[in-house]
Amino acid sequence: MLSLTDLLRRIEAGTLTREGAIRRSQEAIAERDGPLGAIVCSDPTPAIPTRGPLSGIAVGIKDIIDTADLPTRMGSPIYAGWRPRADAAIVARLKALGAVPLAKTATTAFAGLDPAPTANPHAAGHTPGGSSSGSAAAVAAGMLPLALGTQTGGSVIRPAAFCGVCAIKPSFRLLPMVGIKTFSWALDTLGLFGAGVADIAHGLSVIADRPEIDRPGGDRGAPRIGLCLQDFAGEADGDAVAALVRAARAAERAGATIVDLTLPEPFAAAWAVHGLIQDVEARQALAWEYAAHRHLLPDVLGRQLDRAQALRVADYDDARRTARRARRRLKDVFGEFDAILTLSAVGRAPASDTTGDARFNRLWTLMGVPCVSLPVPGDGLPLAVQVVARFGDDGGALAVARMIEATLRA
Amino acid sequence: MLSLTDLLRRIEAGTLTREGAIRRSQEAIAERDGPLGAIVCSDPTPAIPTRGPLSGIAVGIKDIIDTADLPTRMGSPIYAGWRPRADAAIVARLKALGAVPLAKTATTAFAGLDPAPTANPHAAGHTPGGSSSGSAAAVAAGMLPLALGTQTGGSVIRPAAFCGVCAIKPSFRLLPMVGIKTFSWALDTLGLFGAGVADIAHGLSVIADRPEIDRPGGDRGAPRIGLCLQDFAGEADGDAVAALVRAARAAERAGATIVDLTLPEPFAAAWAVHGLIQDVEARQALAWEYAAHRHLLPDVLGRQLDRAQALRVADYDDARRTARRARRRLKDVFGEFDAILTLSAVGRAPASDTTGDARFNRLWTLMGVPCVSLPVPGDGLPLAVQVVARFGDDGGALAVARMIEATLRA
Repeated sequence: MLSLTDLLRRIEAGTLTREGAIRRSQEAIAERDGPLGAIVCSDPTPAIPTRGPLSGIAVGIKDIIDTADLPTRMGSPIYAGWRPRADAAIVARLKALGAVPLAKTATTAFAGLDPAPTANPHAAGHTPGGSSSGSAAAVAAGMLPLALGTQTGGSVIRPAAFCGVCAIKPSFRLLPMVGIKTFSWALDTLGLFGAGVADIAHGLSVIADRPEIDRPGGDRGAPRIGLCLQDFAGEADGDAVAALVRAARAAERAGATIVDLTLPEPFAAAWAVHGLIQDVEARQALAWEYAAHRHLLPDVLGRQLDRAQALRVADYDDARRTARRARRRLKDVFGEFDAILTLSAVGRAPASDTTGDARFNRLWTLMGVPCVSLPVPGDGLPLAVQVVARFGDDGGALAVARMIEATLRA
Repeated sequence: MLSLTDLLRRIEAGTLTREGAIRRSQEAIAERDGPLGAIVCSDPTPAIPTRGPLSGIAVGIKDIIDTADLPTRMGSPIYAGWRPRADAAIVARLKALGAVPLAKTATTAFAGLDPAPTANPHAAGHTPGGSSSGSAAAVAAGMLPLALGTQTGGSVIRPAAFCGVCAIKPSFRLLPMVGIKTFSWALDTLGLFGAGVADIAHGLSVIADRPEIDRPGGDRGAPRIGLCLQDFAGEADGDAVAALVRAARAAERAGATIVDLTLPEPFAAAWAVHGLIQDVEARQALAWEYAAHRHLLPDVLGRQLDRAQALRVADYDDARRTARRARRRLKDVFGEFDAILTLSAVGRAPASDTTGDARFNRLWTLMGVPCVSLPVPGDGLPLAVQVVARFGDDGGALAVARMIEATLRA
């Protein structure tokens, strides 16, 4: 994989030019993307800024994010050939930092559940996960050092887990959503994929203009970590649980205190209403597509929106109250714990007729708290764990993830 | 003015056809818009649904709101000839209800502070207010029975006050923002303009699918109303204060209890940080326009974004905490009062080299609470007052406004 921090170090040291760094991505895409289908389109002659803290870094942009210089297809024929007038706020920000938005990456249609035409770089017949399929696969295949995804259920953490890369779904609205196709405004969260925890920590801290996010950890003493199986969400596969236990032991070896954590009500209730909030908002966000082009929507999304038409506004209001209660309660939980260590996904990447299951991601998306997924090394298709911290403590989640990553690799 | 409820009654009674109702708007626009400049463009041969609770109702769409069938210019040459692919969620919703999005209405550039080329229907040399200039003027001039605006500071309530029409800025996110150009995502709120309180109450209840919003009032007994001058925001003109006192007396005559209300800290602090939150978000929301087309931005907005580049993220975080404290405290205030009665604007519409001052609107936009503006009849250019209720109680604000309106008209 291409490491963002490694590339920046080499550019800084003068052993790699900015053009050379971008060229590596271009060559890797040309060589490897054919069978993968991670890239929708890319800029053949990108402008390469000569300054800025991310200059020389090629970035993959999930294809529901507006770009003025490249088409934005939303993974749907309804947007065939569509070219937005403006860059999304995050794309303009990347350019201002010197980064090169080199390629649009494959997304499921409108970031829904119907699979994108992207293969898992670790095994062709398996899904890379969704909906940020191309961004996760492109980083995993060493084509890009940084890629953008969005998560409404589990669309950043799940593909990161399935593809064996790191990712962060930051605190809600830490990164700007302007110019990104909406699925659910209360849930949609912009996130980053990278090779290692240091890469996404550095990328996020620069993009969000918050230096405190990128710290190696240890400045707050040994963390107290709640180990959480999310029983209310159902069972995980045995090897996913085993990976979680290995990550917990790694954290303990690194000095953390691990305590079993069973989340009380109202978290099960909040988890259960995620879909209702999402779907009431999706039926509004995609109302034009549904009214004008229902026949062009893919199967799962089309049926999801069919069902959503019957949902009641009063139930949506109740669901939001349930979510607010859980958010307040979660503050108490994070009074006792610095971080929660939990499952990133049900197990390894399933076959590619699905994008996998977001059951272990939904609660955290609804809570708006930062989540970091990191691979747990082992045989076979990738497995991963997820570190969750309190709202606004993205740096804390990354520090704990970095500690576990270092110990697992040692 | 064209009353939405009156038109629907006539259509229901068979004394007016749906086509006839739409034609009235088309003819009024053709006759009156020339000197006003409220309409940017309109659909010459609109589809007129034959069913739906708003069928026969022509709606004006502020020109920062995406329409698939009409250009969307954002009040800026940067978007000359721009045609979005999709309708904004609110436009798709209006169509689904049978309404006809007949015309795009003039907006200041990107809903900023530089005046739009729209005259006040009551006096040509005066501003109609901004940024929803065309929507307020079009309703005031009897061209449309319903129009959409957005408010980030005071861009719905202020033009309603200056043009002598009713308007509601609903609870934050009651109406969907998908497909509307963002200025500040924490503040931007979609609102409605209409001839009378009953018109916007009926419109909002149907659009938001919440029947409880449209109730004549009286079902909760005599309201207890806090009369608030917002001293922290500076002084209002004498005739605006006199209009507020007249509205308060009207409420008392109708049975309400009026109590002087001086808002304690942290409301002054929250009021003071509104601009910081707005501008840190605006520099992100308009980052592409600023980077690629700075020279095409109008004076006030261009300089506002110049200054915004230097704002600090840490101050933005502090400002959001201040706003959250004030929101919590406002719940206590609404434990004592059913509504707050306050100023809609500093005074009457000023000369048209400005869009007026939003000082009496900013706090309520930041608090996310529903605000209804209604005219206080009298001589000269229009004056208005504003009724504010707790978050989610849009029906309560409308009921109190309706009570005052009925007594003032009697």
